[in-house]
Amino acid sequence: MFETLETHMCFGGSLKICRHPSAATGTGMRFSVFTPAGPGPFPVLTFLSGLTCTEENFTVKAGAYKKAAELGLMIVAPDTSPRGDGVANDAAYDLGQGAGFYVDATEAPWAPHFNMYSYITRDLQDILFAQFPGDRKRQGISGHSMGGHGALTLALRNPDLYRSVSAFAPIVSPSTVPWGEKALAAYLGPDQSRWRAHDACCLLADGVGRGAFDDILIDQGSADNFLEPQLQPHLFTQAAAEAGQKVTLRLQEGYDHSYYFISTFMDDHLEFHAQRL
Amino acid sequence: MFETLETHMCFGGSLKICRHPSAATGTGMRFSVFTPAGPGPFPVLTFLSGLTCTEENFTVKAGAYKKAAELGLMIVAPDTSPRGDGVANDAAYDLGQGAGFYVDATEAPWAPHFNMYSYITRDLQDILFAQFPGDRKRQGISGHSMGGHGALTLALRNPDLYRSVSAFAPIVSPSTVPWGEKALAAYLGPDQSRWRAHDACCLLADGVGRGAFDDILIDQGSADNFLEPQLQPHLFTQAAAEAGQKVTLRLQEGYDHSYYFISTFMDDHLEFHAQRL
Repeated sequence: MFETLETHMCFGGSLKICRHPSAATGTGMRFSVFTPAGPGPFPVLTFLSGLTCTEENFTVKAGAYKKAAELGLMIVAPDTSPRGDGVANDAAYDLGQGAGFYVDATEAPWAPHFNMYSYITRDLQDILFAQFPGDRKRQGISGHSMGGHGALTLALRNPDLYRSVSAFAPIVSPSTVPWGEKALAAYLGPDQSRWRAHDACCLLADGVGRGAFDDILIDQGSADNFLEPQLQPHLFTQAAAEAGQKVTLRLQEGYDHSYYFISTFMDDHLEFHAQRL
Repeated sequence: MFETLETHMCFGGSLKICRHPSAATGTGMRFSVFTPAGPGPFPVLTFLSGLTCTEENFTVKAGAYKKAAELGLMIVAPDTSPRGDGVANDAAYDLGQGAGFYVDATEAPWAPHFNMYSYITRDLQDILFAQFPGDRKRQGISGHSMGGHGALTLALRNPDLYRSVSAFAPIVSPSTVPWGEKALAAYLGPDQSRWRAHDACCLLADGVGRGAFDDILIDQGSADNFLEPQLQPHLFTQAAAEAGQKVTLRLQEGYDHSYYFISTFMDDHLEFHAQRL
């Protein structure tokens, strides 16, 4: 059953925290949604968060809603994994609850619930357009870190769903960095050929999403502790150049991995999406 | 010893979380400070938070730093009380740690540490201008709920320190509402004549701060659960009318007591202060 847990007026629109059952995850899933003032239908931006986050981090920290209200943009921020007592977990912050990686897991103990790919692209869609005045035909997707990985891979694989894509400090090559290697091995098993559909650089190399996006905007802080060990955005610009995909990668001098970085450049991303929706 | 616990680049400036020893509270006190880009000196806005808050709530939720960067405004957000194992506390959310009420306590067990009035107006001042490029002569103060009470009372009593004052959903008459009656009785004792110096309506009636402020801006949400039982801003506009003090009270239809309300009107308050600093 769809539930609205909180409603707050915000910049003339409404901010709601909701929960609904997902067939993909077999759990109740939480998300926040900002709806501008007016009847709609509104273009919709989905924002996917990073490791350890819930739907709350973007919602309270990103400072996105003033510009979203101006642009008439709905913004949806889902949780990053299934949660609950009956759901598998791991003591590490980068696996299990809070670390869904936007894949459909095939391996034990994750397979029954860790199906965030299907959750975001199917179940969340269904509830969004049944309950809110979004325009299903005008959707964009963005995200941060693990959520940037999610935004890039979901967009490239679903250009019929998403017409614009951007990311903040994304994991672009999960097959070759520690966070991704650990998560993809756990969720998808050791056969790396099955990882390619969840690796933005591999998707570009495989021609997935070719021609769908006129540009992809990526902001990356130069003082981000994860830049070298986990993120390496140059791998994405290299793969994009080889695939003929335009990418605007902006290295932001002095910025780190936090929401202080995200909030600084949020308005640019919202305008990037609004121009394309 | 002054310590910088975190530094983040944010809207071209810097956001720091700091800790320093306070003689007034006898404890280490935390605050956040946003400093715009450039050498300064910058006008300074102190923002006092409400019950249960720390320095973090405003810092991550208010969405103030984009406009502050544009206006060249430093913003300081201190914690709401002394804290720690040796500091008195109460199981209720509205007394003790997280509920300092910006007074200097005279009663046991609070007196040794609960001296937030002297902390904000003296010790925080000293460290701010020793460590940051603020302009001591151009300061404003604002706050939310209990912190709105703090802003109004500290400003009226210290017009030499603060040249502008505003508040979001402030407690204006603590002597006559449950939150204030409980806290002032605990911190200052049962003699209500000693409460007057910490009650914004009484200060106006007593002529304290007369002529110091050309206007006082107050925003109040109409859907705020605390409006009737705790806040009652009409008591302040009545007292102000009798005292000849201009107050701009804006009742914001549909808004509640949360940071979604505060963030919506934050830029208006920053501009109000910047015009006067």
